[in-house]
Amino acid sequence: MKTVGYAAHSADAHMVPYHFERRALRPNDVAIEILYSGICHSDLHTVNGDWGPQPYPLVPGHEIVGRVLEVGSAVKHYKVGDQVGVGCMVDSCQDCDQCHHGEEQYCRHGMTGTYGSKDRIDGEITQGGYSKHIVVREEFVLRIPDGLDMSRAAPILCAGITTFSPLRTWKVGPGSRVGVIGLGGLGHMAVKLAVAMGAEVTVLSRSDKKAEEARTLGANGILVSSDKSAMKAASASFDLIIDTVPVKHDVSPYSPLLDVDGTLVIVGQLGAMDEFVAAPLVMGRRRVAGSLIGGIKETQEVLDFCAEHDIHPICEIIRPDQVNDAYAVMSKGDIAHRYVMDMSSLSVE
Amino acid sequence: MKTVGYAAHSADAHMVPYHFERRALRPNDVAIEILYSGICHSDLHTVNGDWGPQPYPLVPGHEIVGRVLEVGSAVKHYKVGDQVGVGCMVDSCQDCDQCHHGEEQYCRHGMTGTYGSKDRIDGEITQGGYSKHIVVREEFVLRIPDGLDMSRAAPILCAGITTFSPLRTWKVGPGSRVGVIGLGGLGHMAVKLAVAMGAEVTVLSRSDKKAEEARTLGANGILVSSDKSAMKAASASFDLIIDTVPVKHDVSPYSPLLDVDGTLVIVGQLGAMDEFVAAPLVMGRRRVAGSLIGGIKETQEVLDFCAEHDIHPICEIIRPDQVNDAYAVMSKGDIAHRYVMDMSSLSVE
Repeated sequence: MKTVGYAAHSADAHMVPYHFERRALRPNDVAIEILYSGICHSDLHTVNGDWGPQPYPLVPGHEIVGRVLEVGSAVKHYKVGDQVGVGCMVDSCQDCDQCHHGEEQYCRHGMTGTYGSKDRIDGEITQGGYSKHIVVREEFVLRIPDGLDMSRAAPILCAGITTFSPLRTWKVGPGSRVGVIGLGGLGHMAVKLAVAMGAEVTVLSRSDKKAEEARTLGANGILVSSDKSAMKAASASFDLIIDTVPVKHDVSPYSPLLDVDGTLVIVGQLGAMDEFVAAPLVMGRRRVAGSLIGGIKETQEVLDFCAEHDIHPICEIIRPDQVNDAYAVMSKGDIAHRYVMDMSSLSVE
Repeated sequence: MKTVGYAAHSADAHMVPYHFERRALRPNDVAIEILYSGICHSDLHTVNGDWGPQPYPLVPGHEIVGRVLEVGSAVKHYKVGDQVGVGCMVDSCQDCDQCHHGEEQYCRHGMTGTYGSKDRIDGEITQGGYSKHIVVREEFVLRIPDGLDMSRAAPILCAGITTFSPLRTWKVGPGSRVGVIGLGGLGHMAVKLAVAMGAEVTVLSRSDKKAEEARTLGANGILVSSDKSAMKAASASFDLIIDTVPVKHDVSPYSPLLDVDGTLVIVGQLGAMDEFVAAPLVMGRRRVAGSLIGGIKETQEVLDFCAEHDIHPICEIIRPDQVNDAYAVMSKGDIAHRYVMDMSSLSVE
């Protein structure tokens, strides 16, 4: 299948139009016309080569919403015209303990990323959602529930599941005391989701500039991390802190905020973290953990949860030819929304 | 009550004989003749002032085994002659959620340490186990079961409970895959206890020098942390790692050894830890936690567990006047046993 997208041809993250082929449908494949494609900060890191060398040309994008165009002969759950999504994974071994219990993101043999990974069958490099079409095996296709606005659903497939999964893993519910560090793409979804679960949510931020935004999202308030006396007064007052900071930082100012047995979950940073002090962990049996997106089953759950609770990411809709401008804004720092590309202007012709 | 012990008079950790008074018995107090007193590496740190300024003269010691000499009028559970022990705590508020569920070490108002703390009633500085007698409220007195050798039981009250508590918290049992970093006072007890719980235990060490010792303790084997290919082959193969390293170090070489949802528990270091890499935590939902000794109920459990399974720390029995020599050996590095002082040579006269 001929398609078109935006690709980086080298590690400078500059995206240019790119015509390429999607594979012919295998029996369990679904061909999707992409309607909206979210831009994740990790796209920028990946195409820049910040996380290791990449195969170019590379079409990024793992927040994909669209409509089924065609299905393979063995596809059971989707039909032409269905509203569907694709997230960060397009395949896994399907045969290990992790895959069996629905956590393909921790597949023992490594999940296949939506872009920049080797396809498990033909070895071709996968290409992502900054394109007009995509072909994905049925097991990795999500259903977009009717209650969701298609133009704003895409970021749920990454920012949504990345924050939903730890909220579920650490059993957040009514009365849970949840902190969220950072109010960018991940952070604002963490707040909305935790609030909808009934948690008391506090945003942790370097200044109080985002206090009103935090309250608009449903948070009880903001805790200013540069205010030492406020931080001291908040000791041992959180069950879970979702740490969305996407750069090297120190967890030591935050760990004392956790109650005994509380956990700080890193979801925004993969690289180096600063030196930290062990005492708050030891003195309160506190924990620092990480969490990676979520499994396919849980991704469907977050889509359904967002539909049920009318939760949408804050999106700014742009055209695909504005992607480089969006990258320029994102590379300057945190933005409190997600850029989502409306792919309708993109044409294969 | 007149007593005698060994005290540091300044932050050079040099111990000299010291005559002092123990308080008159309150109704709920137990007076104990100390028979054996363990020497913990943290005694050395504390009297040195490594963890902050201390009140001097200071009598260290929180691994205490002895015999009841006298009981207060309201004491219910002990009588003269009973074999008893005292660990790292001698009091707590007894009224917060943590105290109520038996985790006095995390008391909301701060537990009272066996030495160097302010007594909650008279404000006097508590003095520890390097002495002939101690007076402790009943609730913080442990029973030494008949099955334990009194001369080797003392280190169970610190090294034992410090490793037993995380093994229980993280539900180690038959088939659990447990790693132990370091084979000193804490590490060798972690191995013995985890083996007795039915776990498959591996010692992590910088060289294979301790391989035989590890096997003698019941470990399946040793994983040499400087052997990169062995470390790589051991990826994702541990449910729990007990990290007893008492100095600043990097958890990054160890975190990839944890399976999905596995935890590395820091029990040996309170100060700074090195920079670490977030990726292994994120990519496997792994956790780094800390743990502090254990509650009184759990301390009684580890004593009973050791009696039942015939577990004794490896002890070298010395006289109190050899304490400075022991400190000199300990300050040079890890020792694979505990020094325990036989207090019989100490006389109040």
